Amino acid sequence: MILINGIASDCISVNDRGFQYGDGLFETIEVIDGQPIFLQQHLLRLSKGCSKLIIPSPDINQLADEIRAVCKQAKLAVLKIIVTRGSGGRGYRQPEAIQPTCVLSLHPFPDYPKTYAEQGINARFCDTRLGLNPALAGIKHLNRLEQIMARAEWDDPDIQEGIMRDINGHVIEGTMTNLFYVKEDITYTATLKLSGVTGVLRGIVMQLLREQNCPLIEQDYSKEELLAADEIFVCNAIIGIWPVKQIGDANFAIGKLTGQLQAWLAKLKRQTY
Amino acid sequence: MILINGIASDCISVNDRGFQYGDGLFETIEVIDGQPIFLQQHLLRLSKGCSKLIIPSPDINQLADEIRAVCKQAKLAVLKIIVTRGSGGRGYRQPEAIQPTCVLSLHPFPDYPKTYAEQGINARFCDTRLGLNPALAGIKHLNRLEQIMARAEWDDPDIQEGIMRDINGHVIEGTMTNLFYVKEDITYTATLKLSGVTGVLRGIVMQLLREQNCPLIEQDYSKEELLAADEIFVCNAIIGIWPVKQIGDANFAIGKLTGQLQAWLAKLKRQTY
Repeated sequence: MILINGIASDCISVNDRGFQYGDGLFETIEVIDGQPIFLQQHLLRLSKGCSKLIIPSPDINQLADEIRAVCKQAKLAVLKIIVTRGSGGRGYRQPEAIQPTCVLSLHPFPDYPKTYAEQGINARFCDTRLGLNPALAGIKHLNRLEQIMARAEWDDPDIQEGIMRDINGHVIEGTMTNLFYVKEDITYTATLKLSGVTGVLRGIVMQLLREQNCPLIEQDYSKEELLAADEIFVCNAIIGIWPVKQIGDANFAIGKLTGQLQAWLAKLKRQTY
Repeated sequence: MILINGIASDCISVNDRGFQYGDGLFETIEVIDGQPIFLQQHLLRLSKGCSKLIIPSPDINQLADEIRAVCKQAKLAVLKIIVTRGSGGRGYRQPEAIQPTCVLSLHPFPDYPKTYAEQGINARFCDTRLGLNPALAGIKHLNRLEQIMARAEWDDPDIQEGIMRDINGHVIEGTMTNLFYVKEDITYTATLKLSGVTGVLRGIVMQLLREQNCPLIEQDYSKEELLAADEIFVCNAIIGIWPVKQIGDANFAIGKLTGQLQAWLAKLKRQTY
C-alpha cells in the first residue's frame, strides 16, 4: 500500500524535487502486529531532519495517526516514510511556498535468516569512501549515492554488510547499518559529525548502554582498531542488532555485550507495543 | 512536454531509485531554433557519468534522435535529461538487471535580463560548504542537497549567484555555475577533484582558451585569491558566460577576456546549429 499525501497512488510527479535532486528525507520503520516500532523516535528524527533541510515538517500527530492506520493490518512489515520539498522552485532554488510531499509505503519484511542475529554475519571493508560533509552528516536524507556505490561493490550472498570508512580512513558505519565495537568492556562508535546517518537504533543502543551503566565512547577510530575489537555488531531499525563474526580473514566471537543488548532491545520492543 | 522512456507522461513510480535515493544523473541543455546546443558534449558527459555510477548508459544515438524530435518545435527552451537506475533492487543494492529510467522534459527558457551577460552580476559567498567526495566529484548526479542548501541562504533578487567553497576553504564553483577568474592574463579555475560538477560549458570555455593560446591553470585557490582577481566570470550551459561585477563589497571590472570568451562562445554556438 502506498499513500502520497494521504491518497492511494504509486505515482510521483516528475517535477517532485525528491526525484529532481534527492531533495528530501526518509525513515524505515519495523511494523509488528500492526504497531510501528519506535515510531516516536523515527518521527522525532524526521522532524529534526526537516528542520535541518528547511523543509516544513509534516504535522507529526496527524502523520502518526496516518501511519497507525496504514500499519493496522500488517503482521510483520516495513513502513517507509519519504518527505520531500515537493514540486516547484527554479532550479536548486526552493519555491516560495513549500508544499512537501509525504509518501507512506508498506513493504514485506525482508526474509533475513535468523542465523544472522544468532550466529553473526560476515562483513567486508568497502573501497567506496564516505565524503566529509558536516552540513548533511547525520541526516537520513535522500542523497544516497555513496551507499549505493558501496553496496554495488560485492555480489557474494555470503557477505551481509559492507563497512564504510571516510576519506580520512576513519571507520564510520555499514552501508545500511550503524557499527559498534567493544574492547575491554568499553563500547565505541563513530561520532558521525562529518558523515554517516544517526540511526534510530543507534540511538536506542546508546540509550540501553547508558541505562545499564556500560561505558560508551563516540570517537574516530581506524580499521586496525576495529579489527582489534573483542566484539563487533551492526544495527538498524529493521534488522535490530547483528553480531559481526567475520571481516575478511578476521574472526570475532559473538560477544557477551552484543547478546545482552539484543535481549535488552527485545524487552524494550515488547514494552513499546 | 515530458517523455518517460519515450512515452508522454509526467508520472514517475514512487519506487524509482531516482526518487528513493537520488540514484541517477541529469543534463540541462539550451535549445535554440529546435537545435539542442552542444548536444554531443552533453551526451558524452551523461554517458561518462553513467559509467562512473555503473548505470547502463542509454543508447546515445537513439537518445540523440529522440532529443532532436522533442526539441524540433522549440524556438528557445531548456531540455532536461534525467537518467536513473530505474526501479527495483533491495534497499541500496541495485537490481540484478538494471532498466534505467530516462526522462526528457522541455522547459521555458529562464527570463534572465540581458544585463547579466552584458553588465555582469552580483554574487555572494555561501556559508554552506561543499563536502569532499572524490567518488562523486565532477559527476552531474541527482544528489544535490548541498546546492539546494546553499541556494536557500539568500532571497535578495539583486544577487544572482552564490559562490561555494569546500570544507577546506577552497573556492569551487557557483551553486549553478562553474567559476573562473583571470589574474595577469592567466585564467584559473578549480580542479573539481574532490567536489563540484564538471560543467559542459566549463569544458567549452577551457577548449576556447586552449584554441586561443590563453594560459589556463586548474588549481585550488582561496577566497582571498579570488577577490584579488582582475576579472571573474561564471558559466553554465543555459546562461552562457556571465561576468561577475560584485562579490559582497568587492567590485570587479568587466574583463576583456570575459568579453572575448563571450564572443568566441557565440561564434562556436552559431557554428553548431
